[in-house]
Amino acid sequence: MKALAYHGAGKRTWEEKPNPAIKNSTDVIVRVTKTTICGTDLHIMKGDVPEVPEGLILGHEGVGVITEAGSAVSNFRIGDRVLISCITSCGKCDACRKGMYSHCEKGGWILGHLVDGTQAEYVRIPYADTSLYHIPDGADEEPFVMLSDILPTGFECGVLNGRVKPGDTVAIVGAGPIGIAALLTAQFYSPAEIIMVDTDINRLDVAKTFGATRVVHGNAVDEIIKLTNGKGVDVAIEAVGISDTFDICQSTIAAGGHIANIGVHGKSVELHLEKLWSSNVTITTRLVDTVTTPLLLKTVQSGKLRPQKLITHRFALNQIMRAYDTFGNAAKEKALKVILTN
Amino acid sequence: MKALAYHGAGKRTWEEKPNPAIKNSTDVIVRVTKTTICGTDLHIMKGDVPEVPEGLILGHEGVGVITEAGSAVSNFRIGDRVLISCITSCGKCDACRKGMYSHCEKGGWILGHLVDGTQAEYVRIPYADTSLYHIPDGADEEPFVMLSDILPTGFECGVLNGRVKPGDTVAIVGAGPIGIAALLTAQFYSPAEIIMVDTDINRLDVAKTFGATRVVHGNAVDEIIKLTNGKGVDVAIEAVGISDTFDICQSTIAAGGHIANIGVHGKSVELHLEKLWSSNVTITTRLVDTVTTPLLLKTVQSGKLRPQKLITHRFALNQIMRAYDTFGNAAKEKALKVILTN
Amino acid sequence: MKALAYHGAGKRTWEEKPNPAIKNSTDVIVRVTKTTICGTDLHIMKGDVPEVPEGLILGHEGVGVITEAGSAVSNFRIGDRVLISCITSCGKCDACRKGMYSHCEKGGWILGHLVDGTQAEYVRIPYADTSLYHIPDGADEEPFVMLSDILPTGFECGVLNGRVKPGDTVAIVGAGPIGIAALLTAQFYSPAEIIMVDTDINRLDVAKTFGATRVVHGNAVDEIIKLTNGKGVDVAIEAVGISDTFDICQSTIAAGGHIANIGVHGKSVELHLEKLWSSNVTITTRLVDTVTTPLLLKTVQSGKLRPQKLITHRFALNQIMRAYDTFGNAAKEKALKVILTN
Amino acid sequence: MKALAYHGAGKRTWEEKPNPAIKNSTDVIVRVTKTTICGTDLHIMKGDVPEVPEGLILGHEGVGVITEAGSAVSNFRIGDRVLISCITSCGKCDACRKGMYSHCEKGGWILGHLVDGTQAEYVRIPYADTSLYHIPDGADEEPFVMLSDILPTGFECGVLNGRVKPGDTVAIVGAGPIGIAALLTAQFYSPAEIIMVDTDINRLDVAKTFGATRVVHGNAVDEIIKLTNGKGVDVAIEAVGISDTFDICQSTIAAGGHIANIGVHGKSVELHLEKLWSSNVTITTRLVDTVTTPLLLKTVQSGKLRPQKLITHRFALNQIMRAYDTFGNAAKEKALKVILTN
Repeated sequence: MKALAYHGAGKRTWEEKPNPAIKNSTDVIVRVTKTTICGTDLHIMKGDVPEVPEGLILGHEGVGVITEAGSAVSNFRIGDRVLISCITSCGKCDACRKGMYSHCEKGGWILGHLVDGTQAEYVRIPYADTSLYHIPDGADEEPFVMLSDILPTGFECGVLNGRVKPGDTVAIVGAGPIGIAALLTAQFYSPAEIIMVDTDINRLDVAKTFGATRVVHGNAVDEIIKLTNGKGVDVAIEAVGISDTFDICQSTIAAGGHIANIGVHGKSVELHLEKLWSSNVTITTRLVDTVTTPLLLKTVQSGKLRPQKLITHRFALNQIMRAYDTFGNAAKEKALKVILTN
Repeated sequence: MKALAYHGAGKRTWEEKPNPAIKNSTDVIVRVTKTTICGTDLHIMKGDVPEVPEGLILGHEGVGVITEAGSAVSNFRIGDRVLISCITSCGKCDACRKGMYSHCEKGGWILGHLVDGTQAEYVRIPYADTSLYHIPDGADEEPFVMLSDILPTGFECGVLNGRVKPGDTVAIVGAGPIGIAALLTAQFYSPAEIIMVDTDINRLDVAKTFGATRVVHGNAVDEIIKLTNGKGVDVAIEAVGISDTFDICQSTIAAGGHIANIGVHGKSVELHLEKLWSSNVTITTRLVDTVTTPLLLKTVQSGKLRPQKLITHRFALNQIMRAYDTFGNAAKEKALKVILTN
Repeated sequence: MKALAYHGAGKRTWEEKPNPAIKNSTDVIVRVTKTTICGTDLHIMKGDVPEVPEGLILGHEGVGVITEAGSAVSNFRIGDRVLISCITSCGKCDACRKGMYSHCEKGGWILGHLVDGTQAEYVRIPYADTSLYHIPDGADEEPFVMLSDILPTGFECGVLNGRVKPGDTVAIVGAGPIGIAALLTAQFYSPAEIIMVDTDINRLDVAKTFGATRVVHGNAVDEIIKLTNGKGVDVAIEAVGISDTFDICQSTIAAGGHIANIGVHGKSVELHLEKLWSSNVTITTRLVDTVTTPLLLKTVQSGKLRPQKLITHRFALNQIMRAYDTFGNAAKEKALKVILTN
Repeated sequence: MKALAYHGAGKRTWEEKPNPAIKNSTDVIVRVTKTTICGTDLHIMKGDVPEVPEGLILGHEGVGVITEAGSAVSNFRIGDRVLISCITSCGKCDACRKGMYSHCEKGGWILGHLVDGTQAEYVRIPYADTSLYHIPDGADEEPFVMLSDILPTGFECGVLNGRVKPGDTVAIVGAGPIGIAALLTAQFYSPAEIIMVDTDINRLDVAKTFGATRVVHGNAVDEIIKLTNGKGVDVAIEAVGISDTFDICQSTIAAGGHIANIGVHGKSVELHLEKLWSSNVTITTRLVDTVTTPLLLKTVQSGKLRPQKLITHRFALNQIMRAYDTFGNAAKEKALKVILTN
């Protein structure tokens, strides 16, 4: 088969690879029908994720059809259409039993990271029974690709951890795909205001069409403090992963508010406890658990969530080298999410 | 009357002051029968709390008897024995209606900070109906002095924010009075282990008598990681307020765990988001709201909590200058809390 | 002034009454600008609420302008436009401090029940600081009349107690004004399905325009079980107050589900614990606390909630006798809420 | 092997049975070292559980050693000492993923109910990886037998559902083994008062030794109302399963309180919604999920919980016919739990 393989920082190739085979009785093989590229894949390509082995197939998102199933798989059969979760969950360890699949002793984020991923014609999925979801009969596949990673990430790490509630004022710092995923799912809870912060005006224009009630592109702290009459925001969601954006969150959070970090940080940040110690704030971090995937599936099926709106570009899977280039120039290309169809 | 007044960094005097008088219809005057000295009073004396005005009477803890009551006071009468909360709550503003009395628009921490406090023969208590609590008939007063500040602080900012639950492993960093208050109230929830961390071996010996199951006095991070078989603790409570102790918390917290900051920090700390971003941790800060005072009163009355165990030294109120010296040398004097009786 | 007074079962008159006066320093007098009639007022008129004294002015909803204020009132001034809460809260008792204003020791539901109410040109409001809310400058008054009782009742007793969440299937039994209030506010949480149950087809047609995704008017249990593929609903909200409608809830609730009772029941019901004991269900009751009024105000101001859609009829206040007739024949008149303007 | 088999109402025999064998790759075979008899077994013997097939081996509690393991079992090996959960959980279905193992699509309560149980020399355990727990090296086995059913039942259905918190007043109606399990685990949360209600004075004497602060044996409603100064209790736990005991709960619950039903009811009860509709109460039901077993294991290991105190009688497994007689006359024999050792 063909697949997108990583060969060290900056080097990727669309190359011939052996078809994956069942290794454990809990595995299935999925023929990938649609996949996408994540910001994390770009991080890997920059060499920022050194544990990725040479030659690994990238990709941790996608939908497909089961072509082979291990003997211990009971929830799925050959021919089933499935949504692949970016997080692999064994279903048996302490972390999985607590709903913290991200810290599964045998799984977690392994696809396209430690084991071959979904940017390929076929992929082996370990612990299939607890790492895949059925796609409803007759449903279009595209929205479900968005449920592999980006929507549960925005929802769990941003919206749920931020405890967004009706009437709240929410700031989302970063209007990239993850920030937009948080923006879409924050609206599940009917906040009064969602202030979107980014330095890219195009992205903010897009954010308005996704439901942002206000946008801020410069002087963010002062602007937010002004917009909230000096009170600050009830919830601040960090969706970038750098010191500057975390600072906007800690400088604008109201007393009693919640800062929900989604961003993947490469460096430490300065936490202003000399101010915050008495502010009754809560700061959370989280690697997505994908524990809300069943809930999100229901909101997609009922039309409350239309995540396909995030898709800006479509390619054939064998055009993936070009798709990486497009996604890698997201600002210029006005790209949010690309779909690759096999 | 006589009172302890602040006259700039390092200067305090036991001096003659005018008796306090009712200013607003919601005030009462309390004849202080017992008061104490808080670590915060020592901070003020060092000059760390510059907003304290010259000449202010210090003290935000105590019990006493009402000698005068404003016309709008309905819950209390002259002659009632009362517990004075360190937090003044108007009961009417948004913050008070949400149970966040610490951020009351007209109150919060004002006693012995912005208005004259309790280290005096008499004190004026604003918003008496929502800032005082009845002391049960016949009850000894000493335990209730501990409920003005230290017990609700350890409980709300440490134990409740840390979400201590049965079977948990808890680390409390700092075995001073606040750390001990957290230690006492953490036991409400039957954690499996409470590891107490301090550099002072005497304090750790005391902590053992208060229910610590383990104590650690050096090399804290390594020791805690070893004691928890590499997993870290479910809850880490910071009860000092400096960078080093916050670091112990962030270096030993298990995935999914809670760091509850109690300490009053004078400087920012370095937050290791490059490690924690994927750890599913929660970090909280809080100025005590004293919203649990009614609950704590019930636990004292039922014998589940015996906060008088914290009292190591007793003085007459007019010996308060000496009491400050003793409390200021807490390590040497083996002092936790001092009681001053009027 | 003129007011609507109760003179025993079936007897009401629009009559001359003395203007109300300040009794306690925490009172204000409000000139009522708009009021409405509640289903509870009809219950009183039937003689079902025997504690209502002869001659009492009815009404517990409305908006108006403050014309006089007691000396202890600090949040409001003469001339302020205010929303009157149906629940009076002293702000000082244990129940109020816990946010359970409905069980306030000195208040609770007293307006138009134990003390003169709002169906009058003027009304005295006890504990004004904690029982009134400011109406934003320039805002239309009509939506706020709906926030006195009906919206917080549907929201707190139905939606919050039912813990509606994204993706849920919700049944609301009873499509009267309270059921519609629950329907409107359930949508704050983006459930996948809201099934509205009533025997009146007209009301169900109205419910569809308010966001019901399904309606059921006969054979409700079978229909709901069929609609949910045999699983039952996640949340069942009882908005009538009789045995039959409670039965629909207990017969259609899924394992792990929540039954939220709003209805005012006159008789006991049979609870099928022989089936439910092992169903992991939660059943709640509640007299509205109006603790969410500030939240609801924000959702109205931000346009997330448009409660004025409930208003079907408008009268002058002095036409209130006719308005009662109309509202008393709600099915025939297709009435949800009537507005009376002074 | 030998086992205790059910042969219709009133008929049980200690008889020869074929040794169990692995049926599915997720099964293990356990040599039972200790088991016990549950009140539910007595219900079965009375013929109250008609779905139990003729000839079934009873018993859903016990500890033992694994003698054989299916190929898909990964958490356990031959020779491991294990605690058998009364609830079988597949770990993969929606209910299991939500932590509601009691409603597992393939498991739930099946041991000694629908498939052969633990009152035998050997037992087959389906879905072993998610239905067994490791017993710590060197630990005494007896306390863990109490963790198969009775302790998680009292804790989850009674204490957690009742949301017992520090300072609360709790009533537990029924001082049998389940009521005592609730009594023991309620103390995890430091309530101020635990009032134990039963008609058997001996059992109440026992309850006092387990931590009850008050006991009531007649005129329960009046007594509890008096003991609580007319307020009622914060939490009422029903641990019997009949109308009279449920009535005590609904007649003594304070406004805002929680009624947690544990009892297995054979008939419906009358729910007094005509009184309770406005009381802000919560009523819960639950079949134990055993989701707290890991937590309870930690409390046993740390000495916070000593469930072996419930054991009043010990027999050899081959004396089980006599043990049933003893346990069936619990009041006369002063029996709480019996241990059968193989």
